[in-house]
Amino acid sequence: METAEIKVQASTHAYSIVIGEGIRKQTKQYLTKDYSFVWIITDENVAPLYLSDVLEACSPLQVHHTVIPAGEQTKSTDYYYQLLTEAIEHNLDRSSLLIALGGGVIGDLAGFVAATYMRGIDYIQMPTTILAHDSSVGGKVAINHPLGKNLIGSFYAPQAVIYDVETLFTLNKKEIRSGYAELVKEALISDEAIFYSFLNTDFQALSKATVQEHIHIGIQIKAHVVETDEKEADMRKYLNLGHTLGHALEAQLGYGTLTHGEAVAIGLLFAIHVSESVYDNHLPFSELKQWLQNNNYPLELHSVDQQAILAKMKNDKKNKHQSIQMVLLEQIGKPIIKQITDEDMLYYLSSFERKLVGE
Amino acid sequence: METAEIKVQASTHAYSIVIGEGIRKQTKQYLTKDYSFVWIITDENVAPLYLSDVLEACSPLQVHHTVIPAGEQTKSTDYYYQLLTEAIEHNLDRSSLLIALGGGVIGDLAGFVAATYMRGIDYIQMPTTILAHDSSVGGKVAINHPLGKNLIGSFYAPQAVIYDVETLFTLNKKEIRSGYAELVKEALISDEAIFYSFLNTDFQALSKATVQEHIHIGIQIKAHVVETDEKEADMRKYLNLGHTLGHALEAQLGYGTLTHGEAVAIGLLFAIHVSESVYDNHLPFSELKQWLQNNNYPLELHSVDQQAILAKMKNDKKNKHQSIQMVLLEQIGKPIIKQITDEDMLYYLSSFERKLVGE
Ligand SMILES: NC(=O)c1ccc[n+]([C@@H]2O[C@H](COP(=O)([O-])OP(=O)(O)OC[C@H]3O[C@@H](n4cnc5c(N)ncnc54)[C@H](O)[C@@H]3O)[C@@H](O)[C@H]2O)c1
Ligand SMILES: NC(=O)c1ccc[n+]([C@@H]2O[C@H](COP(=O)([O-])OP(=O)(O)OC[C@H]3O[C@@H](n4cnc5c(N)ncnc54)[C@H](O)[C@@H]3O)[C@@H](O)[C@H]2O)c1
Ligand SMILES: [Zn+2]
Ligand SMILES: [Zn+2]
Repeated sequence: METAEIKVQASTHAYSIVIGEGIRKQTKQYLTKDYSFVWIITDENVAPLYLSDVLEACSPLQVHHTVIPAGEQTKSTDYYYQLLTEAIEHNLDRSSLLIALGGGVIGDLAGFVAATYMRGIDYIQMPTTILAHDSSVGGKVAINHPLGKNLIGSFYAPQAVIYDVETLFTLNKKEIRSGYAELVKEALISDEAIFYSFLNTDFQALSKATVQEHIHIGIQIKAHVVETDEKEADMRKYLNLGHTLGHALEAQLGYGTLTHGEAVAIGLLFAIHVSESVYDNHLPFSELKQWLQNNNYPLELHSVDQQAILAKMKNDKKNKHQSIQMVLLEQIGKPIIKQITDEDMLYYLSSFERKLVGE
Repeated sequence: METAEIKVQASTHAYSIVIGEGIRKQTKQYLTKDYSFVWIITDENVAPLYLSDVLEACSPLQVHHTVIPAGEQTKSTDYYYQLLTEAIEHNLDRSSLLIALGGGVIGDLAGFVAATYMRGIDYIQMPTTILAHDSSVGGKVAINHPLGKNLIGSFYAPQAVIYDVETLFTLNKKEIRSGYAELVKEALISDEAIFYSFLNTDFQALSKATVQEHIHIGIQIKAHVVETDEKEADMRKYLNLGHTLGHALEAQLGYGTLTHGEAVAIGLLFAIHVSESVYDNHLPFSELKQWLQNNNYPLELHSVDQQAILAKMKNDKKNKHQSIQMVLLEQIGKPIIKQITDEDMLYYLSSFERKLVGE
């Protein structure tokens, strides 16, 4: 499959997202400026697999690299500060480039370092997970606070996104599930045909061409949304489909029990369930549930307390003035935002739990 | 004198700078939106003087305030983190407003909190120092790293700047000197008549009308520069006139020995000295020196080692690729950027030192 290119217009500048096979080995050709110094940040899982290719592809530029632990807990104020210190100690100046090579954790953390080192230096996203198709587009960068996820961050668009689909074939199944949940979400808020084509995917028999196509579509949808509404006013909220319950589950179960996408997958089913109740429409609840089951998504509510889930939903930072805003579907491709009372939410949670176990 | 208003067009949005007497007492009328919550951050010197007025002026909105220690050491990662934690604990959401009531330290720190809390909430600058006419315009916000000043930060424009000149009359002489040095700098890069009118100022007999007029002019000059060139490419560099030596002196003597503006004042004389050497032109070295002396600016190089000063100049983050870029004047109102070799710089430093002591 040929390398694809999507142009994104951020409020500050335009940039390209290139998606292709093996393009990590052509990193240098996608650099948009003559940088004095390149700094690659990656994690301990990605480094042994792909770092040497990227290092080689940056030659003969002056390059420094940093390998940090993998996982959500690395998106912390401690690592943030440690990376800034390293930048200073290596004399990075304003004409340096930072490359974030890894999943959403590396993208968010290294992106926030780039956003705030000397009031902002250039950076490039090189996503190596499927989920990072989401995090690498839109310019949101962030780290976690012990009191909540992504509470510290900013909007800061990359100079380019270099997406090598080859790298996705070393991901474990859990990570593939996590990324595909967001792809399915994008399909649900945009188009019925895309949604059903995504449901043809069997993770046991994934081809590079299929992944590239799906990521391409997913990024186009996300890019369209964020271009239309870069600062999360209305349209961008649609991307939160499935996240009301998803975030609450993640928080309630402790980060790590479910991946983000696995939690979102359950959240998508829940959003469909609530939509059907509110709009009395027919949505593909059972089709989606079947596909999720075929691909081994964990689909239980883990007998978590519903009052506790409700409290977590109300903590979500997207809930202006403490009431719960939820993205629903009038139909596939027609998302809508609705305020849900606590009472109704508790009712939907119980009926959803029953429906999930097939009662 | 009537309240003046300057409109600034930042890359993200337009905002107003209002300058007037007693306008801290009308804070609420300058709020541009219906905020759910207002959070005032100020320091221990400003709080007893002006906090109650602003609190009263925000009534009946829901307001919380935080008073932190005064001084440059407060612009630290520790206070930054502490304020973010406080924001979360007080449930600040995206429709909250932060008000930075104080000098440049409060403006920079609180501004960076606003820039990065939940990827950015609205904030208003209420500068209470003369120097803050500089820091409150242009959207630069930052904190210090133990390894260097302002190394962590971003560009994030306020929703408004409310500048009550009445508050400037509780500043001590050192702070007045500090702020006026930046005003003189703005005059030097823009207009000869303005420069000479500023030199009529006697700090012993400062009137509100004069300060308001000077601040108005200074802000117009700075706003014009940053509008033309928001991201510090070329034109914005002219604002660094006097800062090559100024920053080096501050760093070398240890922050606190000289105020920023006092160091810049010496730097301005130095920039004029170098300009005269390079361009063989006549600039008002002795006029400026006389005025600085009349107003008790400390004008010695404190017998600091010139090699050390040179090293500090080369550390300055504005020096791309480690060579020293200096802003010079072809004439008043005609700034220009010039690379200076180490050898020449050492020569200029010695000749300057001799000239300063009047040899
Ligand atoms: N900024 C945004 O808009 C946005 C959007 C969605 C999610 N996110 C963030 O993204 C993060 C999750 O992203 P993620 O799921 O990519 O997590 P991740 O970066 O932790 O990657 C998941 C795991 O896969 C490993 N890995 C990465 N690439 C690999 C490869 N090619 N082969 C083998 N292993 C590989 C990683 O080391 C890690 O262990 C969360 O922190 C979330 O908040 C941000
Ligand atoms: N962001 C920018 O573009 C920019 C530009 C220039 C300077 N700065 C920053 O600004 C800071 C310096 O600003 P500053 O000189 O205002 O420092 P400051 O905020 O420390 O104020 C100086 C002193 O005056 C006191 N004070 C403030 N207002 C007072 C009042 N009305 N009456 C009595 N005392 C008062 C303060 O408590 C402090 O002790 C530095 O950190 C510098 O890096 C930023
Ligand atoms: Zn998500
Ligand atoms: Zn200055």
